Amino acid sequence: MNPLDPRLAAIFRPRSVAVVGATEDRNRVGGRPLHYLRSFGFAGAVYPINPKRETVQGYRAYASLADLPEAPDVAVLAVAGDQVQGVLRQCAARGVRSAVVMSSGFGETGAAGAQRQAQLVEEARALGVRLIGPNAQGVANFQTGAVLNFSTMFMEVPPQDGPVAVISQSGAASVMPYALLRERGIGVRYVVASGNDADASVCELALTAAADPDIRVLLLYIESLSDPAMLAEAARLARSRGAAVVALKSGRSAHGAQAAASHTGAIVSDDALVDAFFERHGIWRADDVHGLVNAVELYLASGLRAAEHLVVMSHSGAVGVVCADTAERFGVPLAQLDRSTVQALARIVPGFATAQNPVDLTASLLTDGSMFGRTLDALAGDPQADMFLVGVPVAGEGYDVAGMAADTARFLRQTGKPLAVSAPQASVRDAFRAAGVPVFTHETDALAALHQVSRHALLAQGASARDARDAPGQASPVPGATRTLSESQSLALLQSAGVPVVAHRLCTSAHEAVQAWRELGPDVVVKACSGDIPHKSEHGLVFLNQRSEEDVLRSYEECVARVRSLGAPLEGVLVAQRVRGQREFALGVKQDPLFGTAVMVGDGGKYVEALKDFAVLLHPFSEQDVIDKLARLRIAPILAGVRGEPAVDLQVVARAAVALGGFAAARGAQVVSIDLNPLIAGPAGTGGWAVDAVVEESVAGHG
Amino acid sequence: MNPLDPRLAAIFRPRSVAVVGATEDRNRVGGRPLHYLRSFGFAGAVYPINPKRETVQGYRAYASLADLPEAPDVAVLAVAGDQVQGVLRQCAARGVRSAVVMSSGFGETGAAGAQRQAQLVEEARALGVRLIGPNAQGVANFQTGAVLNFSTMFMEVPPQDGPVAVISQSGAASVMPYALLRERGIGVRYVVASGNDADASVCELALTAAADPDIRVLLLYIESLSDPAMLAEAARLARSRGAAVVALKSGRSAHGAQAAASHTGAIVSDDALVDAFFERHGIWRADDVHGLVNAVELYLASGLRAAEHLVVMSHSGAVGVVCADTAERFGVPLAQLDRSTVQALARIVPGFATAQNPVDLTASLLTDGSMFGRTLDALAGDPQADMFLVGVPVAGEGYDVAGMAADTARFLRQTGKPLAVSAPQASVRDAFRAAGVPVFTHETDALAALHQVSRHALLAQGASARDARDAPGQASPVPGATRTLSESQSLALLQSAGVPVVAHRLCTSAHEAVQAWRELGPDVVVKACSGDIPHKSEHGLVFLNQRSEEDVLRSYEECVARVRSLGAPLEGVLVAQRVRGQREFALGVKQDPLFGTAVMVGDGGKYVEALKDFAVLLHPFSEQDVIDKLARLRIAPILAGVRGEPAVDLQVVARAAVALGGFAAARGAQVVSIDLNPLIAGPAGTGGWAVDAVVEESVAGHG
Repeated sequence: MNPLDPRLAAIFRPRSVAVVGATEDRNRVGGRPLHYLRSFGFAGAVYPINPKRETVQGYRAYASLADLPEAPDVAVLAVAGDQVQGVLRQCAARGVRSAVVMSSGFGETGAAGAQRQAQLVEEARALGVRLIGPNAQGVANFQTGAVLNFSTMFMEVPPQDGPVAVISQSGAASVMPYALLRERGIGVRYVVASGNDADASVCELALTAAADPDIRVLLLYIESLSDPAMLAEAARLARSRGAAVVALKSGRSAHGAQAAASHTGAIVSDDALVDAFFERHGIWRADDVHGLVNAVELYLASGLRAAEHLVVMSHSGAVGVVCADTAERFGVPLAQLDRSTVQALARIVPGFATAQNPVDLTASLLTDGSMFGRTLDALAGDPQADMFLVGVPVAGEGYDVAGMAADTARFLRQTGKPLAVSAPQASVRDAFRAAGVPVFTHETDALAALHQVSRHALLAQGASARDARDAPGQASPVPGATRTLSESQSLALLQSAGVPVVAHRLCTSAHEAVQAWRELGPDVVVKACSGDIPHKSEHGLVFLNQRSEEDVLRSYEECVARVRSLGAPLEGVLVAQRVRGQREFALGVKQDPLFGTAVMVGDGGKYVEALKDFAVLLHPFSEQDVIDKLARLRIAPILAGVRGEPAVDLQVVARAAVALGGFAAARGAQVVSIDLNPLIAGPAGTGGWAVDAVVEESVAGHG
Repeated sequence: MNPLDPRLAAIFRPRSVAVVGATEDRNRVGGRPLHYLRSFGFAGAVYPINPKRETVQGYRAYASLADLPEAPDVAVLAVAGDQVQGVLRQCAARGVRSAVVMSSGFGETGAAGAQRQAQLVEEARALGVRLIGPNAQGVANFQTGAVLNFSTMFMEVPPQDGPVAVISQSGAASVMPYALLRERGIGVRYVVASGNDADASVCELALTAAADPDIRVLLLYIESLSDPAMLAEAARLARSRGAAVVALKSGRSAHGAQAAASHTGAIVSDDALVDAFFERHGIWRADDVHGLVNAVELYLASGLRAAEHLVVMSHSGAVGVVCADTAERFGVPLAQLDRSTVQALARIVPGFATAQNPVDLTASLLTDGSMFGRTLDALAGDPQADMFLVGVPVAGEGYDVAGMAADTARFLRQTGKPLAVSAPQASVRDAFRAAGVPVFTHETDALAALHQVSRHALLAQGASARDARDAPGQASPVPGATRTLSESQSLALLQSAGVPVVAHRLCTSAHEAVQAWRELGPDVVVKACSGDIPHKSEHGLVFLNQRSEEDVLRSYEECVARVRSLGAPLEGVLVAQRVRGQREFALGVKQDPLFGTAVMVGDGGKYVEALKDFAVLLHPFSEQDVIDKLARLRIAPILAGVRGEPAVDLQVVARAAVALGGFAAARGAQVVSIDLNPLIAGPAGTGGWAVDAVVEESVAGHG
């Protein structure tokens, strides 16, 4: 099934539009769309609905939808909130299947409004009408002039059609990127603000925009990610033709505040799941509105083109040094120029004797303008040089800026490699932009854009590879009442999932405990086992370094006495082999009703929550995905082996993470969360063991 | 002694200027200063030196400096490099005490040039002439029009006098901030590029600029920080009248690469010392050229004003949410609005029932423009609200932008509190800028500037407090040959410095070792002690958990045998009490010939180099300074006490750091470095103990 709904596609590209609540005043919500439809040259039929007038803004007016000569593709509702439901029925009666509801007074106003909104959506679905809104600023299509949108911005900043779509819940957040892009001279086709997002979500509208083959960049502003499957589909469709999706998902901090955690799984915040989801589907996450638009020129110039090594070129040594510093900050390595490149450069740049990147054209550029183009030519074929930052810190009399811009544009056409120019002078930027070269005011913005586009390409490749390999993950059911299993029960479940577990015995008598010590010793750990006490060490219920019959007997009795004094049931006393590994890891599972089964993996031990050095993956994922994530932890240098230590066995961690994800996803509602800490891993190739775990399960699941 | 040299002050503000090598062509180095002197209205005497012409660019020309009717305040040297030394002598002969040497062919060209440069500086000092350069783009003063500078930029971007000075080694890096500031409408008085920095360093020129009482912001671009004491003096002078110093010190990455470390002290890179030095003297360190200029409008509007809590105000909820996210990213807390403020707001903003920051004016701003000013008034008196971000995502027909700008300007005048406006529309920015309000295109830039100015104020306060308390630190002598002391000798030195040291005995017989165990046991550590083997554990020379006479005897013999097999001298076997603390710290001392005695303090244990969780302080510093630094480590949550653990005793760490700094500074050349790892600290109030240490000392120091 193709999830693209033609009723939404019709809102993006209508042939005819009715405006219910149309007014003469172009500064009112019911007046501005008519003004825009005329100003921006909409060629289809426009039907103002206004029973009191013959014409509205020069268009023939109609008393009601019923009076229209045809069923319009879209109705714009600019009426009072309490009239919306009535107009919706009229729409359905007249055969209108698509509506933009600008009216407010719904979910944004409180509980009563939310109820009215739910009724509206329910009735719309029953009637077969799709809605954008309510409380929506609306939809603008600057290719056709179908601007069903009441923002003032389009009067202030003139539109121009282009290969960019902005899809936003917020009206303000839809026109801010628009204004910034237009100021850079970039054309924008769609500006959509979905308001309360009640029927057609921003995710589904993203899919609608992605279906337009001209759209090469989708910019999304999302406050609540209600429909991840639809967004995944939008991202897949965009990727399939090399279009980039960049999303600003706000509310990091609000979610962050909720992340007060009681166990390993719980430290996975909703926001970390959003990160994992975006990464999984090749969506670049922007931090702010600036980040949403910053790289658009590069996407348009070079597409999603994977690149790794940077060349910095400038006629100032200082720009080179500063850019090298900034590149290191972003983790972008500088290209090691090939010998032949260096030889070619040495014939162009005076005194350029050794391989040097940043490339410094020096002040000689003033006396020999051809150096610029010849240097670009020399760099074009370098095998490692795959992205370029050209700094033009100053130009003026004596500099051939137009020639430099033309040379750069030619380089772009010939190589297709990502290249960004940075120049603090507006006149220099204008010259490069006129030649079609991506240009920035600040070196750091240019470098951020290069970094983004090159990393995003890898992300998109990874997402496509995963699409080809894995069936999509499923949302997890919302759990009801839950209970935590004891360590013994939890370890047994982990073992059944395929996670290697430390050798242990659950003992219900001192005799059994001593027997276990004889089997597993000479060095064992003795722990009380009770589903009611997940944090044993905080209650003094873990006894390490037990090396004798006396040790074990004493600890056994202590366990029994202390659990009794805590008033908790004692399942038994666990005697476990002492494991000597190299590094402790924490793994966790969290079932999420939106994103499905999430697995966290990171630095283990008792400070997991305090140090927060972990990564999150959404099931399904591969062992290599886990290895890649571990390589980005703060403890990564230790895992690789330092101070003469061998590397840590990461395969066992990766296998365990994949096993936990698969196990939990298969159990669905039954396994609510898993907290495995620590998994002790040995040196590479030696494996590892789960040493302690708590599984939380649904009471119904075992009922 | 006032280190300000009047000969440099004369270059910044000359009454008369000679240009040696003056030419008619205003596009050549010897022609452009004359062009600028005339264009920018320099009122003093201008003397072109050119033996072949009667006049140059309309000024009467002279054949030589000797022919001048007076000794000019400054000579500009625009002659070939090999003529510079001769012209310098003519300067001295004619009584010229100050020169700007634009000529190239010196240190920038290699070893021969560097030697020529050294000779030039030596002769200049002997002759009593101060130089800027060689290879300097020169000095510009846009108050007086004394533009002794050959940059093309001043033809491209028209200058205007203002309270900002840009002092840079690089020519490009001097005019890039200039262009960016001018584009924002900010006036700049001084633009100075010192080139090879051979005589007057950028540090000393910063002091020269700081001495101008009109300068309120100093922007520095530094490639090599050659004269920190002079820069400290510049910072002190600037601070004394509330002026801000912002520095871009490039070469982080180059220095970063050198930081391959072999011991604790060595992981303190040169760049970390620069950070510590800037912090000590209240200089804000920028990461890039954008960061150098981004906050200038705020410094000029509000000065260095300490602020902590942010209010975000906008007529878009989305802007509020995004700014709240960004504030959290910067670590800027949102103000909790006072009850009375909330009540006042509730009378202005419809439906504003509960305390809310971000403040959302909603779309009602369109129908009631007075809301904007009234909301600012309501916020002005709030006790916690001390900085403000006003987002104007969209404006146009119906919005009273001029009124909003006037209201904001009034708020600034009345409160003096830091406030920044952010608007993606150029027309909106222009309106606020015209009213004198700091304005930004992107919310994140606005927030970065607010964060910077408020944090910088605290930094400056701290620097002034330290100036009042401590004598300045001294540069450390450059060490000659060094040797490492054994653990026993090192611990003894630490003890003499006042650092608490674990109870231990150096034993030279098995009998002594057993005797030590009896005194210090029942649980001791046995270690071989040899100055030639600083990394004992990597050679299996550390025996933990020694609890019996047999354990100790066996370990003693092992130590003797293994050290013998390594061919190293054995000083003895160290028997130390087993210390059970709560957290291991690493402390280190590095003597630096530029910055003096640097102390590092951070997370201890064997992964110090891999995890790099440490801070650096320059002696002298206080215990509170150390505590403040520890609070910014990644392990800070653990130090504060988590999972029921008590807080860690940070006082003992702070005392030890202060003691080590004082000890090493007092010993000067003798103590080259100290590596103390671990210092084991107990729970707060219980103290701690240095457990292992290596002191590196100068051979001469003990010779």
